[in-house]
Amino acid sequence: MDILKPYLLFLGDVPDDLAAKTAHGIVDWRREWCVGQLRLPGCKADCGLPDLTLEEAKARGARTMIVGVVNAGGRLPSHWVGRIVDAIEQGFDVATGLHRRLASIPEIAEAARRRGARLHDVRFSDIEFETGKGVKRPGLRLLTVGTDCSVGKKYTALALEAEMRARGLNAEFRATGQTGVFISGRGVAIDAVVADFIAGAAEWLSPANDPDHWDVVEGQGSLFHPSFAGVTLGLLHGAQPDAFVVCHEPTRARMRGVRHPLPTIQDIIDRTVIEGQLTNPAIRCVGIALNTEALGDDAARALIAETGERHALPCCDPIRTGVGPLVDEIERRFPRGGPA
Amino acid sequence: MDILKPYLLFLGDVPDDLAAKTAHGIVDWRREWCVGQLRLPGCKADCGLPDLTLEEAKARGARTMIVGVVNAGGRLPSHWVGRIVDAIEQGFDVATGLHRRLASIPEIAEAARRRGARLHDVRFSDIEFETGKGVKRPGLRLLTVGTDCSVGKKYTALALEAEMRARGLNAEFRATGQTGVFISGRGVAIDAVVADFIAGAAEWLSPANDPDHWDVVEGQGSLFHPSFAGVTLGLLHGAQPDAFVVCHEPTRARMRGVRHPLPTIQDIIDRTVIEGQLTNPAIRCVGIALNTEALGDDAARALIAETGERHALPCCDPIRTGVGPLVDEIERRFPRGGPA
Repeated sequence: MDILKPYLLFLGDVPDDLAAKTAHGIVDWRREWCVGQLRLPGCKADCGLPDLTLEEAKARGARTMIVGVVNAGGRLPSHWVGRIVDAIEQGFDVATGLHRRLASIPEIAEAARRRGARLHDVRFSDIEFETGKGVKRPGLRLLTVGTDCSVGKKYTALALEAEMRARGLNAEFRATGQTGVFISGRGVAIDAVVADFIAGAAEWLSPANDPDHWDVVEGQGSLFHPSFAGVTLGLLHGAQPDAFVVCHEPTRARMRGVRHPLPTIQDIIDRTVIEGQLTNPAIRCVGIALNTEALGDDAARALIAETGERHALPCCDPIRTGVGPLVDEIERRFPRGGPA
Repeated sequence: MDILKPYLLFLGDVPDDLAAKTAHGIVDWRREWCVGQLRLPGCKADCGLPDLTLEEAKARGARTMIVGVVNAGGRLPSHWVGRIVDAIEQGFDVATGLHRRLASIPEIAEAARRRGARLHDVRFSDIEFETGKGVKRPGLRLLTVGTDCSVGKKYTALALEAEMRARGLNAEFRATGQTGVFISGRGVAIDAVVADFIAGAAEWLSPANDPDHWDVVEGQGSLFHPSFAGVTLGLLHGAQPDAFVVCHEPTRARMRGVRHPLPTIQDIIDRTVIEGQLTNPAIRCVGIALNTEALGDDAARALIAETGERHALPCCDPIRTGVGPLVDEIERRFPRGGPA
């Protein structure tokens, strides 16, 4: 799926910015793709973009209206439907990450058919993936992995892409979740793929490439998460990473949504190497990314230093300190021209 | 999904018995559920059941017609569609394991609506699973795992159920693949579940039960298969097995469909324990099931003895020698009243 750019971000009338998390993610990483936001009366979210009507957005060149919000229950409220139909009538494509397909709503399906608009439901995949082949592909790959869900795997991957590109490396973010798909304009929500095709979808997402090209693949879940480890393992096998970065939130006590305690960073390093060797025997850890948002600056910096020392690996907080040390390690371990 | 019994097996006009593998599996394990078979002119498969017309099958009490065959490409030939519609008109439910939903064929959908027939597409799941919780459930569970796909995991699980029941144990086969679903009349094709819900589907499949009740869960894939290990891991985490049996085909050199060599039995034991401990710290291997079909009797029996000795575990071929030694070990390790 290739989502046409630039975007108009539809924020509906959601009660807070948390509900507009996806829209905020897009603006954080791809401000240049966003011509503006469309808010309904009562909307309490604000992405800091110009408020535009459909006509104004169209005049500024917007091609796709992104429904970058979720309401309670993940459903599409009926008073949003009319506005989506209006957008289609104006010539927009529409994209959402909701749990219901846009085309399952008759008015939207009918309008899209009439106008030839493309509807992108990024939580669903209409691609017919093959099963994974496990054959090593040319090109370099990095995967972000985590001690848990929601510990900064997407953010770290995007920060790595930005820093690698700033240094002239040929790096490309590969999205595996809905927000990531909007941010990169392509990708696949890997947790929505049929189980037989997890590894195959990851292979599709990150095809053979130039020997010095880096795919920076957004990780999902955790090998130690009892709900989602299957997704994590299939993604690891399909992505065939040469390098991985462990993401961790140091103040969290239990894994999200379950009673299990968090694994340690070392647990994740060891298990990722053991499992990843199946499709890439040369897999290695190149660093640790801590999400220290919950800590004061002194405590955070001390923890970053101590964690790096304990594992003998570069460690950073992508937001607080940047990912420079991780990219230093990548450049050291994989000098241009091939792995060291 | 509960498929009403007894069954009429529809064999179409397939060119050989391999194409009727599913139907043969049903007859092998649930002969008593099958009133007969329906074959079209030219059919070269034969399950050894009485050839019946729809009317005769109805008169003998059949409730569901199972399309127990696949044609090349997995599609439903148009000349089968008419016969399926006839069956619905006669009052049958219809079940298939094909890659296309029965209801996607207008004549079938229309007939089913008119007659109130239930259409079972066991390759698809319409159940809204929850994500896995990872909480230990009461009851005992055994999972068959394998060095590869198609090494006898379903057969071993069914043989274990039969032997355990013969000894008065409260054991129940839990199907995770399409043939298994027909054989047990319920279950879920776990590889067809959306990736986020693999573990959750396995938890649903094997709910809390009496402390001395055994779920004998059919395994899928292999933790060392680069295409399907994600499914295998999610199933392992959701099934929370107390005991597992390793299934192996000793003459196979490469894993099915890929270039990878087979892991050893010991690889599978070690990795299954490491990964399985996440949701059941007491997981243990209770034996090995070899598929020695390709060996002569002397060589097979020598290999069975040697393999058991090398791993200090009971070893058998479920077909050649029966699974008695495995159930001996289960009874020894888990005496009625709880684990030893």
